[in-house]
Amino acid sequence: MAKNEKMVKDITAMDEDFAKWYTDVVIKAELIDYSSVRGCMVIRPYGYAIWENIQSLMDGMFKATGHENVYMPMFIPESLLQKEKDHVEGFGPEVTWVTHGGSEELEEKLCVRPTSETLFCEHYKNIIHSYRDLPKLYNQWCSVVRWEKTTRPFLRSREFLWQEGHTIHATAEEAEQETVRMLNVYAEFCEKYLAMPVVKGVKTEKERFAGAKDTYTIEALMHDGKALQSGTSHYFGDGFAKAFGIEFTNKENKAETPHQTSWGTTTRLIGAIIMTHGDDNGLVLPPAIAPTQLVIVPIASHKPGVKEKAAEIEARLKEVCRVKTDNSEQSPGWKFAEYEMKGVPLRLEIGPKDIENNQCVVVRRDNREKYFISLDEIETKIPELLKAVHDGLYEKALARREEMTYNATTLEEFCNIADNKPGFIKAMWCEDRACEDKLKEVAGVTSRCMPLVQESLSDKCVCCGKPAKKLVYWGKAY
Amino acid sequence: MAKNEKMVKDITAMDEDFAKWYTDVVIKAELIDYSSVRGCMVIRPYGYAIWENIQSLMDGMFKATGHENVYMPMFIPESLLQKEKDHVEGFGPEVTWVTHGGSEELEEKLCVRPTSETLFCEHYKNIIHSYRDLPKLYNQWCSVVRWEKTTRPFLRSREFLWQEGHTIHATAEEAEQETVRMLNVYAEFCEKYLAMPVVKGVKTEKERFAGAKDTYTIEALMHDGKALQSGTSHYFGDGFAKAFGIEFTNKENKAETPHQTSWGTTTRLIGAIIMTHGDDNGLVLPPAIAPTQLVIVPIASHKPGVKEKAAEIEARLKEVCRVKTDNSEQSPGWKFAEYEMKGVPLRLEIGPKDIENNQCVVVRRDNREKYFISLDEIETKIPELLKAVHDGLYEKALARREEMTYNATTLEEFCNIADNKPGFIKAMWCEDRACEDKLKEVAGVTSRCMPLVQESLSDKCVCCGKPAKKLVYWGKAY
Repeated sequence: MAKNEKMVKDITAMDEDFAKWYTDVVIKAELIDYSSVRGCMVIRPYGYAIWENIQSLMDGMFKATGHENVYMPMFIPESLLQKEKDHVEGFGPEVTWVTHGGSEELEEKLCVRPTSETLFCEHYKNIIHSYRDLPKLYNQWCSVVRWEKTTRPFLRSREFLWQEGHTIHATAEEAEQETVRMLNVYAEFCEKYLAMPVVKGVKTEKERFAGAKDTYTIEALMHDGKALQSGTSHYFGDGFAKAFGIEFTNKENKAETPHQTSWGTTTRLIGAIIMTHGDDNGLVLPPAIAPTQLVIVPIASHKPGVKEKAAEIEARLKEVCRVKTDNSEQSPGWKFAEYEMKGVPLRLEIGPKDIENNQCVVVRRDNREKYFISLDEIETKIPELLKAVHDGLYEKALARREEMTYNATTLEEFCNIADNKPGFIKAMWCEDRACEDKLKEVAGVTSRCMPLVQESLSDKCVCCGKPAKKLVYWGKAY
Repeated sequence: MAKNEKMVKDITAMDEDFAKWYTDVVIKAELIDYSSVRGCMVIRPYGYAIWENIQSLMDGMFKATGHENVYMPMFIPESLLQKEKDHVEGFGPEVTWVTHGGSEELEEKLCVRPTSETLFCEHYKNIIHSYRDLPKLYNQWCSVVRWEKTTRPFLRSREFLWQEGHTIHATAEEAEQETVRMLNVYAEFCEKYLAMPVVKGVKTEKERFAGAKDTYTIEALMHDGKALQSGTSHYFGDGFAKAFGIEFTNKENKAETPHQTSWGTTTRLIGAIIMTHGDDNGLVLPPAIAPTQLVIVPIASHKPGVKEKAAEIEARLKEVCRVKTDNSEQSPGWKFAEYEMKGVPLRLEIGPKDIENNQCVVVRRDNREKYFISLDEIETKIPELLKAVHDGLYEKALARREEMTYNATTLEEFCNIADNKPGFIKAMWCEDRACEDKLKEVAGVTSRCMPLVQESLSDKCVCCGKPAKKLVYWGKAY
């Protein structure tokens, strides 16, 4: 069994090589397998179950805010993609093209959707005529394709699963409110279900989505101090509507152009979970999205009454959490390591001695704290512990982010931090693109966002010294 | 308002032109919109909500039978598709090819999955080593592409949504049992949730899935007497495993080849619902998958207390069914027609007079029967009525199928029925492909299936007169 235990635990230490640690976790926790198409991954049952939990919770939030799901075609004709100029400039270089259907060459080549703004616009044009048809609050769960050069499981894959919300409104104000509302939904989702704090902000013009007037973002900080853009929400104004000729008649029977938004999150969130909470023993899952929230490991299960008691506990806990029992022939030690690797939030051990004492042992995955719990109280204590795990994860992640967030008021200070201290750098900016480019060049960082909650660290741009207009979070990013 | 009522109801009569009726319903009930890519449709919120209900119920049945969801890449390299000879011969002619990623031509062209056997096999080869790794019971919800020449919404589209189950087992027996088990799951699903009776059977060799040793099917009969293949389950034997070199070591440490199955149902089921239950007023939805099971239409809603009472009823009924209230400014008549078009199973009318009498009026969509129900009893009566609608739909569909199923024992009789009576023809067959081809040629029908429950109508093949081996259901099909 020693060999098996070794096998389960055999992952690179985080401090040694973070990228290798990440890949090891993704494979050993059985989240993915590689396929023969580079950048396209197989999402295995354990990985997909996490995505299903994310989907179900987020979809609930979308429905609660009045959104309806639809399904658009996966193909976009070349001429349709080209209708909005900025959009095609942004996405053109990374789309895949279908040129043949069956044995025939297509009259017009089709790209596999990298995002579906153009398809939604085409549909809106068909169904929107009057102010009574507005707003439309739509969302789609699907896969999209972007032919990236470098790829990493979940973080940057050529095909990925996502949701894309697309809404259209009578007024600019309403569309702007929707953009911010959905950013808040994302932030709440990350904090409430993924135990992951995020910075809410606006992207600079340089980092905006292709075709957007404003891109809002939530930025999280990973264990290694790199930022991960975890969700974006775009305000389009009437640019797409004009390009696609979408109009509606208002109450005064006059033609007007509507205003649009889109917003998306992807399977990248699974990468975010791994790199926010994981440790040298593997994955650590926030309880809300863990496929198994508690695993029961019977100890000395050949002894009379142990299996039966484990089954009884499982039946009782099924009412309050997602539970499973591992009755396999592997040793308890092997099982401990296996479920630590898979990040199961709680482990419950039950053996002959525990039964005698009418108790069980519960161990938290996040901090390995051990609890002796009376069997009379499991239905109340386990949900409490799950909540404690969630809170513990959130607090640890928040504390780390705060520790790894630095202020810089001079360029020297800025570069010094960028070179030596992984994390966010907060610094003032004059809003000049040249300074943004220069900070990238000299410090290797990009602007992550202009936070919604602005502070003033100084009245000068950290780069050029001219009057500062915005506080910006800067950082290296995935 | 007269004009609006007309607009809602303005669909072709079924008897006049069934195909046109179908298209009218699909559009007027707001299930789909066409896109600029022929054969690829936009599934609108109402259509997609039906699919979400189908998904959720069917996924529950899959999970209850031990299946896990996964996600495979959408692209299959040409060389991978070609590994199993029969499979590529069957699918090759209708696949779409991606030849360019970004600005570069791909080294190897990729097809957009028409089905994922080859991808699952590639993955199995990576993860299956020992008998302990078997069985794997996997399922995937995704979209697939088949470049069909003629297309119709839901029934035959170039892109469609589906689930594809893929399982792999240590023994042939276990795989065969799985194939039949999933066929039974499909049949139960259709009857229990779609109120649609199906014939369970086996396809002839000619109609088999490309690469399968046996294809099981459920066949339903549509309103116009044409058959609709509504789900299939394939037994592959070890053909794919051998082609892909998948092996496992058995308990005696010897190498063995595993056995596989796959099974699928698609958004075609929505077409089946439309053509099984629909009528000249539009869609009729089985309660289990109806996005709205009961719509409340307030009558004289400007009168005091009506809106409030409607809201109170809605709040109470939310506990027992999917309910919504239409408080829009349209007339009750317009609303009645609108929700009939959309196939909402029950309509509840509440007006000042009803409130006085402490009652409401409930009208069934399927047969327009009207009930006066005491407001004290709605929580018990509405679920009863929903069940009555389901049962009524099922019985009507079953009676129609029985009426439209004919026996033939001579070729003349067979051709006569095929020419004059739409429906299933039951007739004996010698198992010779030549007879199957001839019946297609002279009577325009295909073999739908050899039913699992066999009977003997005669001891001679209906076509050649040689000894009969199987009872077959024949028919024209979608």
